[in-house]
Amino acid sequence: MSGNTFGKLFCVSSFGESHGAAIGGTIDGCPPGIVLDASYVQQQLQRRRPGTSRHVTQRQELDEVEILSGVFDGKTTGAPIGLLIRNVDAKSRDYDKLRDTFRPGHADYVYHKKYGIRDHRGGGRSSARETAIRVAAGAVAKLVLSSLWGVVIRGRLAKMADIDIPLTSWAKTETNPFFAADDNAVAALEKKIVQLRRKGDSCGAIAEVIAENMQTGWGEPVFDRLDADIAKAMMSINAVKGVEIGDGFAAASQLGSEHGDEMTTKGFASNHAGGILGGISSGQNIVVRMAIKPTSSIRLSRRTLNTAGEETTVSTLGRHDPCVGIRAVPVAEAMLALVLTDHALRYRGQCGQNANTTKAAKKPKKATVAKKQKKTK
Amino acid sequence: MSGNTFGKLFCVSSFGESHGAAIGGTIDGCPPGIVLDASYVQQQLQRRRPGTSRHVTQRQELDEVEILSGVFDGKTTGAPIGLLIRNVDAKSRDYDKLRDTFRPGHADYVYHKKYGIRDHRGGGRSSARETAIRVAAGAVAKLVLSSLWGVVIRGRLAKMADIDIPLTSWAKTETNPFFAADDNAVAALEKKIVQLRRKGDSCGAIAEVIAENMQTGWGEPVFDRLDADIAKAMMSINAVKGVEIGDGFAAASQLGSEHGDEMTTKGFASNHAGGILGGISSGQNIVVRMAIKPTSSIRLSRRTLNTAGEETTVSTLGRHDPCVGIRAVPVAEAMLALVLTDHALRYRGQCGQNANTTKAAKKPKKATVAKKQKKTK
Amino acid sequence: MSGNTFGKLFCVSSFGESHGAAIGGTIDGCPPGIVLDASYVQQQLQRRRPGTSRHVTQRQELDEVEILSGVFDGKTTGAPIGLLIRNVDAKSRDYDKLRDTFRPGHADYVYHKKYGIRDHRGGGRSSARETAIRVAAGAVAKLVLSSLWGVVIRGRLAKMADIDIPLTSWAKTETNPFFAADDNAVAALEKKIVQLRRKGDSCGAIAEVIAENMQTGWGEPVFDRLDADIAKAMMSINAVKGVEIGDGFAAASQLGSEHGDEMTTKGFASNHAGGILGGISSGQNIVVRMAIKPTSSIRLSRRTLNTAGEETTVSTLGRHDPCVGIRAVPVAEAMLALVLTDHALRYRGQCGQNANTTKAAKKPKKATVAKKQKKTK
Amino acid sequence: MSGNTFGKLFCVSSFGESHGAAIGGTIDGCPPGIVLDASYVQQQLQRRRPGTSRHVTQRQELDEVEILSGVFDGKTTGAPIGLLIRNVDAKSRDYDKLRDTFRPGHADYVYHKKYGIRDHRGGGRSSARETAIRVAAGAVAKLVLSSLWGVVIRGRLAKMADIDIPLTSWAKTETNPFFAADDNAVAALEKKIVQLRRKGDSCGAIAEVIAENMQTGWGEPVFDRLDADIAKAMMSINAVKGVEIGDGFAAASQLGSEHGDEMTTKGFASNHAGGILGGISSGQNIVVRMAIKPTSSIRLSRRTLNTAGEETTVSTLGRHDPCVGIRAVPVAEAMLALVLTDHALRYRGQCGQNANTTKAAKKPKKATVAKKQKKTK
Repeated sequence: MSGNTFGKLFCVSSFGESHGAAIGGTIDGCPPGIVLDASYVQQQLQRRRPGTSRHVTQRQELDEVEILSGVFDGKTTGAPIGLLIRNVDAKSRDYDKLRDTFRPGHADYVYHKKYGIRDHRGGGRSSARETAIRVAAGAVAKLVLSSLWGVVIRGRLAKMADIDIPLTSWAKTETNPFFAADDNAVAALEKKIVQLRRKGDSCGAIAEVIAENMQTGWGEPVFDRLDADIAKAMMSINAVKGVEIGDGFAAASQLGSEHGDEMTTKGFASNHAGGILGGISSGQNIVVRMAIKPTSSIRLSRRTLNTAGEETTVSTLGRHDPCVGIRAVPVAEAMLALVLTDHALRYRGQCGQNANTTKAAKKPKKATVAKKQKKTK
Repeated sequence: MSGNTFGKLFCVSSFGESHGAAIGGTIDGCPPGIVLDASYVQQQLQRRRPGTSRHVTQRQELDEVEILSGVFDGKTTGAPIGLLIRNVDAKSRDYDKLRDTFRPGHADYVYHKKYGIRDHRGGGRSSARETAIRVAAGAVAKLVLSSLWGVVIRGRLAKMADIDIPLTSWAKTETNPFFAADDNAVAALEKKIVQLRRKGDSCGAIAEVIAENMQTGWGEPVFDRLDADIAKAMMSINAVKGVEIGDGFAAASQLGSEHGDEMTTKGFASNHAGGILGGISSGQNIVVRMAIKPTSSIRLSRRTLNTAGEETTVSTLGRHDPCVGIRAVPVAEAMLALVLTDHALRYRGQCGQNANTTKAAKKPKKATVAKKQKKTK
Repeated sequence: MSGNTFGKLFCVSSFGESHGAAIGGTIDGCPPGIVLDASYVQQQLQRRRPGTSRHVTQRQELDEVEILSGVFDGKTTGAPIGLLIRNVDAKSRDYDKLRDTFRPGHADYVYHKKYGIRDHRGGGRSSARETAIRVAAGAVAKLVLSSLWGVVIRGRLAKMADIDIPLTSWAKTETNPFFAADDNAVAALEKKIVQLRRKGDSCGAIAEVIAENMQTGWGEPVFDRLDADIAKAMMSINAVKGVEIGDGFAAASQLGSEHGDEMTTKGFASNHAGGILGGISSGQNIVVRMAIKPTSSIRLSRRTLNTAGEETTVSTLGRHDPCVGIRAVPVAEAMLALVLTDHALRYRGQCGQNANTTKAAKKPKKATVAKKQKKTK
Repeated sequence: MSGNTFGKLFCVSSFGESHGAAIGGTIDGCPPGIVLDASYVQQQLQRRRPGTSRHVTQRQELDEVEILSGVFDGKTTGAPIGLLIRNVDAKSRDYDKLRDTFRPGHADYVYHKKYGIRDHRGGGRSSARETAIRVAAGAVAKLVLSSLWGVVIRGRLAKMADIDIPLTSWAKTETNPFFAADDNAVAALEKKIVQLRRKGDSCGAIAEVIAENMQTGWGEPVFDRLDADIAKAMMSINAVKGVEIGDGFAAASQLGSEHGDEMTTKGFASNHAGGILGGISSGQNIVVRMAIKPTSSIRLSRRTLNTAGEETTVSTLGRHDPCVGIRAVPVAEAMLALVLTDHALRYRGQCGQNANTTKAAKKPKKATVAKKQKKTK
């Protein structure tokens, strides 16, 4: 379990470079007997894959995932699930001149210093291309969560550059290329992206992911708190620079009498905590937001060094997302699914004899869940 | 390595409740031959311990740590280091009426649901009392970091309630009870705390920790990024609700042409990244900020439930910090030290043959470092 | 989780040297609600502790364990359980002349080379003294196993020097100082030990541990097989040089038609496998044997080197067991308990929804179990 | 890091079933800059692959491994190395009648009970087919060990059924289909195998692996002893029922004055310990032996149960090794390579500043090494 492995019981390991033969990985520890709908996994990949709109990179990757093991008669067997996605549209020649140049904001320099050798093509291992495997593994985790506990995870873009995007309707996130949960915001978003592309610049964003219909009791005291593992999961996504749970940074300016969520016989009266108390899920919605920095690959010229230590400039042409925050949404959903599944199994391992939260889940009523969400946030 | 263990190679495990016999833990994997100055460990604990000023809880704990193993002739031997701190001033009777009542904002309810049994005295395992062991272990990590690589870690309160606290001088943080790096802010902070205590309320805060004189190459690609592990470390501290690295959430509103740090022969031209690129340290200062929610234990009456599921109210008298963010500062320093030490050893394990960053470090020139810090932040 | 931590979900970490202030450790991940009978833990320690008969070392250690946390109202809370045993009868001066001399068969030389610094007093960290913490933690594991699943673990000395010791009655193991399950063997064992002590020599042994009333389904495919983790657990005990499961090395000379255990409606017809198939428990008794080398500390003079690289001789006076294999028996029981508890929780985590083996266990009928044991072995 | 992952720093995860689309895995944590000779990896696989002689299974698998990532310009980059081997000669129809029948000695029954669902084709995940990935990963580990430290690992069959096979010449192991290090034994081995195949039976074996030109200081105290991890590694191989280091079980009958290896200025005078003291490598050859049970799949009819719980008989036709111990040899070499590489990196991580064993290794002189081996064993 070196750095390319995530999770303790529901465990995902990953390999592959942006312009290598393939990316892939393994899900180890999946509960057996889960109906593994391959088309659902593919559909989740489709949400992240490049080239789907003119607002993201034009690299054409079908991202067809091959599920190589761990499934029999359409169900998981408990054996590890091998995943493989071939790279088909890598244009490595675009990167020839970057072989000896460190792009500002990228991992080029630190990989060079750390490893002494670097696959420069498309960013190699540091490319966000690896997040496709996270999404595939996250899709399996979502299936586990919904089958066994009825948990539902959804994500959206909450802000892009200076444009705040309200949560009007979750359904809208699947109908525009921005994962915006509000139709009225779309025009402004499109205008901003077009403007940035024209200038050769990029912008940052805030994404939000929410887990609904949660169970109580997932998470561990002290170091492996549920929120700690969520923070790690999100910060491990390329370009994420900040993570907050519930009221997050706003809590720094609140009073104790404002922040602490009171309890009534109808449940919690508010959800400032974002569904986690003392590192353990409270049964309320889990609410996570993350800040994503602007894409580092921009057309505007920037000062940098080459491997000889000389000053030079770099202007990144290639094919890049003007706002990497957009495609971070399905990746963030996947990471939340991985953390929750792992902690669900950990909870069951240690406290299974209590079993109050491991009973077969009722089918989540989505409409109700969304309504409850609006009230408590 | 269940939830109360942190780190992969430099590994800290922890035990103990707020009102139990003792808190303690083990540091496993410490490099041998490090001069272990017990008085330094004790002095670091002194910075966190309660009862040191009228602005924090009045519980009187000496927090005398006993180092039970792993040291011979004043040096670490490479064997695990056992740590023990006896609890001496627990007033469990103050908590008798909380035995069956869930305090809002606390872990009472979730512990009850998760474990089916709960040590309610002083919050039991969920109390911030456990952070004393983090500080003791972090002190050892700081000694390792400074001995082997010259890395220096410092923390400060950056904001309390609505009061921003500038970084004027690191030295000041040790001369006032707020870890404020600016003398002029102290009066306002004192006034605010007195006011809150009078009202029976509490407030949130933002803490900042910085690692200077860093090495390049610490951190792993993909999941165990250095920033991901830092995010986990900080979010695992009681009451932390958000973490950011470098420009953090501000990056969401920046352009790519603003954010990416250009490189010149004199080094990086700025430090928007906060010292980490692609999950790996760049050699610049590591800059981390975290939001701490207001103390949940307040005198003001709040609605809640008891274990029978009935509505009731609770007003927490006891002895509590009006702003837990203050004492979070040394804890955050400790957690950053743990993460960096762990990744330093991981780096050396995988890439030791490169060895470019493992040479004996030069003594850090503190003045210069602080100056550089001001420039790049 | 560096080298002094064991287990994945039921996780024990350990610290302490033979002549340091104390030995101790932490059990992390214990299921909540288990009645933790401290006198049972103490009684298990009593079985391992030195000075209990004239056939083991005369060092007088009471081995009184303090349980510092994780227990409330007599039950485990799910929080980590801190354990502490003070060292009281260390005679470090006996070791002064060994400061610079490497005792043959001991870890002195390799610790010196590995760490560059060594606590030579009583063997420091490499002393079998640390196994007291294993026994204390193993006692807690035994309580978990018997409470939740009715599993019973027992051990015995199966061979000492050239004396084979039959399994006549488990009850006998607690009535003689050799953990011999047969009264008739005791006289020969005593004679052998007296003879060895007189000559200043020592002898090897074989210990056997058996888990009865087992559940089916514990263990993982491929690397973390139940037998693989048992092999690791046993080989991690000081002086163990070999481990076998079921027929073990005898299987090398068997035919397939002899070895494979046939199944009938009455259950398995034999137990050549020792209760584990494909790395997973079959529900039969788990049968493990291990070879323990003769005590390295002997009075007879031996050639060796000192830290200056010069040849010298060493004759170990001190207080030592003529056969360390004897006191290895309770340690081996403890290690088997740790492995089984860990895998029971892992099983429940991954496959809890199947739940066929996690139902409340019936009270094991010991007589019946022992009878069945004799039949299948 | 669930059950299908091995190692802490040099970490291998594995997936795939006997009759699935492919087997594969990931090596995470490989040191960068190692020349990765793909033909060497393929050649190691060739030693294990089926169908190479008439004495092993006739299943025809080319076992062509695709290295999908982690290599650039012929060298490892430090990024994870993805491995993939397609299954080409699975004859699943041979297994149709085994869908509902538990083969004695196999994992069929326990998989059924544990997971509630089972890929019965060719044994699914429990098949020894997965060991091909171990061999591929072990080949990479061998390259790391020899490049950085000059360590050489070799294995041989030491016993088959009742035939002891002496170590006459390592070179011979590559010239006969039995990995026999002695030409004279081959005729008897062939006769035995032919006889067994005719009878429809199978036999057990003992394999031995040895690491030469070792470094001192690899391994950890207490739980993660080098010998403990080796024991786990070997016992995790299909059909292994016992493991011993150095004199192993013979040590149970030895005196302390015989067993402990004396030291002289010329080095150790003997190697009863098998190269490991106190869990740490002493620099001597590491000597490991393991007992492998007879193949469970035999033509002779055996009593068993079906999934309905009814008694039935089973006679395994298919294509099987009459002695699985033969092909276990390269697998055991691979597992030893994985353990040593992992501990080499762990040593460097914790004790790198000592650096006495991490200097660039001299080219091992194979002749000398083999000679020394003969003397000390």
